Amino acid sequence: MTKNEKILLGHGSGGKLSHDLIHDLFFRYFNNEFLNKQTDSAVLPVDSGLVSFTTDSFVVDPLFFPGGNIGKLAICGTVNDLAVSGAVPKFISTGFIIEEGLPFKDLEEIVRSMAEEAARAGVIIVTGDTKVVNREKCDKVFINTSGIGILEPRFRHIGTGEGICPGDKIIINGSVGDHGMAVLAARNDLNIRGEIKSDCASLNGLIQKILSATDGVKFMRDPTRGGVATVLSELATGKPYGIMTDEAKIPVNRQVRAFCELLGFDPMYVANEGKVIIVSDPLAAGDILKIMQEDPLGKEASIIGEVSGEYHGKAWMKTGIGGNRILDMLAGEQLPRIC
Amino acid sequence: MTKNEKILLGHGSGGKLSHDLIHDLFFRYFNNEFLNKQTDSAVLPVDSGLVSFTTDSFVVDPLFFPGGNIGKLAICGTVNDLAVSGAVPKFISTGFIIEEGLPFKDLEEIVRSMAEEAARAGVIIVTGDTKVVNREKCDKVFINTSGIGILEPRFRHIGTGEGICPGDKIIINGSVGDHGMAVLAARNDLNIRGEIKSDCASLNGLIQKILSATDGVKFMRDPTRGGVATVLSELATGKPYGIMTDEAKIPVNRQVRAFCELLGFDPMYVANEGKVIIVSDPLAAGDILKIMQEDPLGKEASIIGEVSGEYHGKAWMKTGIGGNRILDMLAGEQLPRIC
Repeated sequence: MTKNEKILLGHGSGGKLSHDLIHDLFFRYFNNEFLNKQTDSAVLPVDSGLVSFTTDSFVVDPLFFPGGNIGKLAICGTVNDLAVSGAVPKFISTGFIIEEGLPFKDLEEIVRSMAEEAARAGVIIVTGDTKVVNREKCDKVFINTSGIGILEPRFRHIGTGEGICPGDKIIINGSVGDHGMAVLAARNDLNIRGEIKSDCASLNGLIQKILSATDGVKFMRDPTRGGVATVLSELATGKPYGIMTDEAKIPVNRQVRAFCELLGFDPMYVANEGKVIIVSDPLAAGDILKIMQEDPLGKEASIIGEVSGEYHGKAWMKTGIGGNRILDMLAGEQLPRIC
Repeated sequence: MTKNEKILLGHGSGGKLSHDLIHDLFFRYFNNEFLNKQTDSAVLPVDSGLVSFTTDSFVVDPLFFPGGNIGKLAICGTVNDLAVSGAVPKFISTGFIIEEGLPFKDLEEIVRSMAEEAARAGVIIVTGDTKVVNREKCDKVFINTSGIGILEPRFRHIGTGEGICPGDKIIINGSVGDHGMAVLAARNDLNIRGEIKSDCASLNGLIQKILSATDGVKFMRDPTRGGVATVLSELATGKPYGIMTDEAKIPVNRQVRAFCELLGFDPMYVANEGKVIIVSDPLAAGDILKIMQEDPLGKEASIIGEVSGEYHGKAWMKTGIGGNRILDMLAGEQLPRIC
């Protein structure tokens, strides 16, 4: 494989070139007992009970951006989807769709990042698939990651938020909007390069610390596409409670705020890839905040609002200038292809 | 959604349009208790033991072909990967990457086919993801399906083929090359329209019948990309046995054979999407053949060869003209984007 500098259609044929790519690249970096069996399905041990199962496709443009790349993002995204369901992420699948002509060194860097992030998060990449399409029929590379996590039955309410009630606190582990703005800044056609770094990170370690320490977590969700506003709006929709947040409590990095103002974006709607929103029992909120703030991934954690007996079905924000505004779902497309 | 005739970038934003697409299309067709919880991860019950986990991305061109479409194919492909591992397929995830401008009616027809095939195969689509990319950055729609099946420990050897030995029989449930040639014939630029239909089908029902009736199955694999030749070549590689097949015993439909001859393809290397190769104990081969032949998906089943104590590490075929030729792995790309 290393003799070929670019990916060819034959690397997706299922024949000799596919076989070589799989062995020389994927097995080399993702090496583990499950994948090494080289079967189309991985056979995995699962204790009796509940599993969480999730899928995400990644089409981010550009592939590489400050703080990460499509490979790291694909691992973090799926790990976080499992973790916020209350599960311990375990097994990951990878599906690559590659544009003919992709430089092999780019693919290798992506795969290397995936292996590195998987090791950091404690998950194993157990099965995969590779397709190659003709030039100009996809954009460099798209990656699907699906994942399986083990869910303790006592945490099964966390994904849906059953049991949320007025008085519950809304907590976030840090600043909003970093990922979307970092990707946007990395786009060559904008020609803006700042110090904005994506927050792309696997949060399962931090989340496990919190779940081990307290029974007060009522709901978790990672505010990716659509941002914090969309998560809170979805959470309130159709519910006998409302959500009230305080703009002054929502951490936004200085450069992100400046860049958003310049371009007319609202950081509350910009994607994050290393953030979790937790709705917690008010008695547990202090402990959760403390655990977050002691973790490198939660230093800027903040209680940003609470569940209210008023405003049924809606999420609101007290603005800096003293008014209240509604946080509705994003209506159109704000930033295409940020994940 | 139905008011919009085409998919827009906003349908992949994670906001209001995404929400509407998910509710009006995916939830409507894929409706089930797991998906309806609308969480990013599906929470699934799993009995203690082993699960099979697999992933496949589908990029077939054209999207619609005689005998199926990309949606049906995506369900059958993942169901079959699980079934040939010896597992009972249970849960499927779907990841859509859609090109802006895709007619909504095409997407709906694809989704409808997926729901129909999932119902036929007895699997549930429990979680999903949708991305939309700009025009000309993908080709209409790509679909990833990942799947989870439950594997009885007594079948765990079936995916890897441990225990295969000389004398074992090699059985296929019908004609080879139908899928690849049907897709090729459906391509407008070739302007050839025959009566060739893809064999695209979920085989888990047939496979379960066989596994319930006999303990003699030593290995199964679905000969998709790379065809029957690539499966047999991979199976023999590095093993202390060889494989000898008989060309006269390999079922090939008349039109497929003619089309292959015309275009210079070898049906042994052409993809199938409704075929399974079984290596069985010689004492069980007759029963397996009978079960296949009594099933609509196995009427043309045939014992096509056997495992040999000679030819270590290689797969061979006795040709119609009396010689032997080696079945090597496909070297380059024969037919891009047939799955």
